[in-house]
Amino acid sequence: MSRFSYQLNATDGRARTGVISTPRGEIRTPAFMPVGTAATVKAMMPESVAATGADILLGNTYHLMLRPGAERVDRLGGLHKFMNWEKPILTDSGGFQVMSLAGLRKLTEQGVTFKSHVDGSKHELTPERSMEIQRLLGSDIVMCFDECPALPADEKRVAESMRLSMRWAERSRDAFGDRPGHALFGIQQGGVTQELRAESAEKLREIGFDGYAVGGLAVGEGQETMFEVLDYAPEMLPEDTPRYLMGVGKPDDIVGAVKRGIDMMDCVLPSRSGRTGQVFTRRGVVNIKNARHADDPRPLDEECGCPACRNYSRAYLHHVFRAQEMISGMLLTWHNLHYYQDLMAGMRGAISEGRFAAWEADFHAGRAQGDIEPL
Amino acid sequence: MSRFSYQLNATDGRARTGVISTPRGEIRTPAFMPVGTAATVKAMMPESVAATGADILLGNTYHLMLRPGAERVDRLGGLHKFMNWEKPILTDSGGFQVMSLAGLRKLTEQGVTFKSHVDGSKHELTPERSMEIQRLLGSDIVMCFDECPALPADEKRVAESMRLSMRWAERSRDAFGDRPGHALFGIQQGGVTQELRAESAEKLREIGFDGYAVGGLAVGEGQETMFEVLDYAPEMLPEDTPRYLMGVGKPDDIVGAVKRGIDMMDCVLPSRSGRTGQVFTRRGVVNIKNARHADDPRPLDEECGCPACRNYSRAYLHHVFRAQEMISGMLLTWHNLHYYQDLMAGMRGAISEGRFAAWEADFHAGRAQGDIEPL
Repeated sequence: MSRFSYQLNATDGRARTGVISTPRGEIRTPAFMPVGTAATVKAMMPESVAATGADILLGNTYHLMLRPGAERVDRLGGLHKFMNWEKPILTDSGGFQVMSLAGLRKLTEQGVTFKSHVDGSKHELTPERSMEIQRLLGSDIVMCFDECPALPADEKRVAESMRLSMRWAERSRDAFGDRPGHALFGIQQGGVTQELRAESAEKLREIGFDGYAVGGLAVGEGQETMFEVLDYAPEMLPEDTPRYLMGVGKPDDIVGAVKRGIDMMDCVLPSRSGRTGQVFTRRGVVNIKNARHADDPRPLDEECGCPACRNYSRAYLHHVFRAQEMISGMLLTWHNLHYYQDLMAGMRGAISEGRFAAWEADFHAGRAQGDIEPL
Repeated sequence: MSRFSYQLNATDGRARTGVISTPRGEIRTPAFMPVGTAATVKAMMPESVAATGADILLGNTYHLMLRPGAERVDRLGGLHKFMNWEKPILTDSGGFQVMSLAGLRKLTEQGVTFKSHVDGSKHELTPERSMEIQRLLGSDIVMCFDECPALPADEKRVAESMRLSMRWAERSRDAFGDRPGHALFGIQQGGVTQELRAESAEKLREIGFDGYAVGGLAVGEGQETMFEVLDYAPEMLPEDTPRYLMGVGKPDDIVGAVKRGIDMMDCVLPSRSGRTGQVFTRRGVVNIKNARHADDPRPLDEECGCPACRNYSRAYLHHVFRAQEMISGMLLTWHNLHYYQDLMAGMRGAISEGRFAAWEADFHAGRAQGDIEPL
């Protein structure tokens, strides 16, 4: 079995492009990972997710441990087989979602106990159990179990939380063991405080991981503050391994993060927005439920190659959204994921050819135009 | 433009197989038509509907006239283009659904006035307006506007209703005019009374249509009564044009109807059942939400070639149904439509080769076995 590796192919400013190699295939970076929360990217067939250009998707430990259960997925041959996705899967550790979704949480040095939001059953997550669950799922890229305060939070709370996460990172590393072909990523914490980010990065490098995430952002701090942190945080992490910004984001968040040296991202936004009628295009966001589309024979984006744009009018997409037909979520999710992957491909090409600044200017100019004029 | 035609290729007992030719492609009969109520077969992409083997689908005049509106569909290039389905489309006349769905209905010799179930707006349907709407939609096979009482109903009511429908059939024929490449089907009424069915058939033959439907069945009379009517009703209709049984049905209804000389059918059952977790297989109905499937690594039906059976376990299908994920409806609808099309293909082959009786015995034997044993 081949090993997990990262090759940096080109840089342009701080932006990077490269390839992560895994036994399940290559991941072209910068990479956007669609989120397959409960063993499905909502409204999508997995072959359609692959058709958008996704090299990897993200699974959620918290959801999968509750339903259908990690031991069950293992008995059934692992998450890839279960959900019919042969390419790489990254799983989060469950820590973040326990804090945002579960009931009756109790946090100790040992870990977190909580009640399931599905059926009220009691569960425990620790670094050791999180590693075990992610192993049972068959995850290719495993995330350390961590704790992450919502922002804004006072610096003392952020520092304590970061140091707890670093002790958990060490326990995660020990529990993960040696698993050729599988990667373990550490997660930098420290909120918006540069000294804490530096302390966290130093500790993670000391432990040693196959990749490093910037955690604790996109939790309420706003884009400006996030970019300020990204102006220093990625470069505190090793250059020769991937850097992953968790839970980000909107198209302009993603472009700004890549510009600042991020290689991987994930977000539910393109799929969730697809189900609520929010469409991402080169000319900004289109709200398909708006009456202006009811008679419009034009595609969402005439330059887009996705099925929603190739085969349907805005009028049709408006109609099926208003009629609450499932094909609405199916087509708009497909379009949004296709748009996100096009965005990543555009950035990879621009970085390779040393024209990222021009590409970025085009990106912002397109959005500034706004949607096409009504007929 | 080629004309609409029907070629009868073989018979086996009363069962028939043949081909309907239209400018938009051939329809192999006996044919099952998936229902695309609001310009979409729910939970399916149109290319997936075609992949199941469907040669034609059905659109609902009542739904489409209310939303998005027939004039709008026409401005947008017709229903085929609107919903990205290039093969033939049959549209019903709206009469049946007005009676079952609309509010404040008022029936006169002229037609029906009613209130929309979508927004309460007031509308009128007459034979002339129904023909106009079906023309605006671009339907390949247009159905006469008719009235159909729920069964059981007293014979006098059924006779009056049938005679009104025959007067409307004549008005439909006049309003349809001469449209090469497009077909108009008459609809036989008369409930469960042989004399009324004969009177209706005679009137329709006198007017002259491109095909004939057996209407007014599957409205509460039960399978045994329906088969009694089908023992005589189809043969009252011309042999050299297609015979269409409207709104039928369950797999064994369909087999019994084909056995009795029916060429075309439509029903929401396979798609609706797909969304509620009811799965049709060679061994009968499987309820995917049953806990017995939670750990079952086997496919729904190991001999089925649909994506749900080729790529997923019962355990996965159970999980996504319980988690209310959209892929559940997508996969189970696909399977059910595939099953229905396999059924039709099996009957077409058996009739061609003069072995329909043996095929039918196998069909019933498979269902009598019941589902595979739990592991």
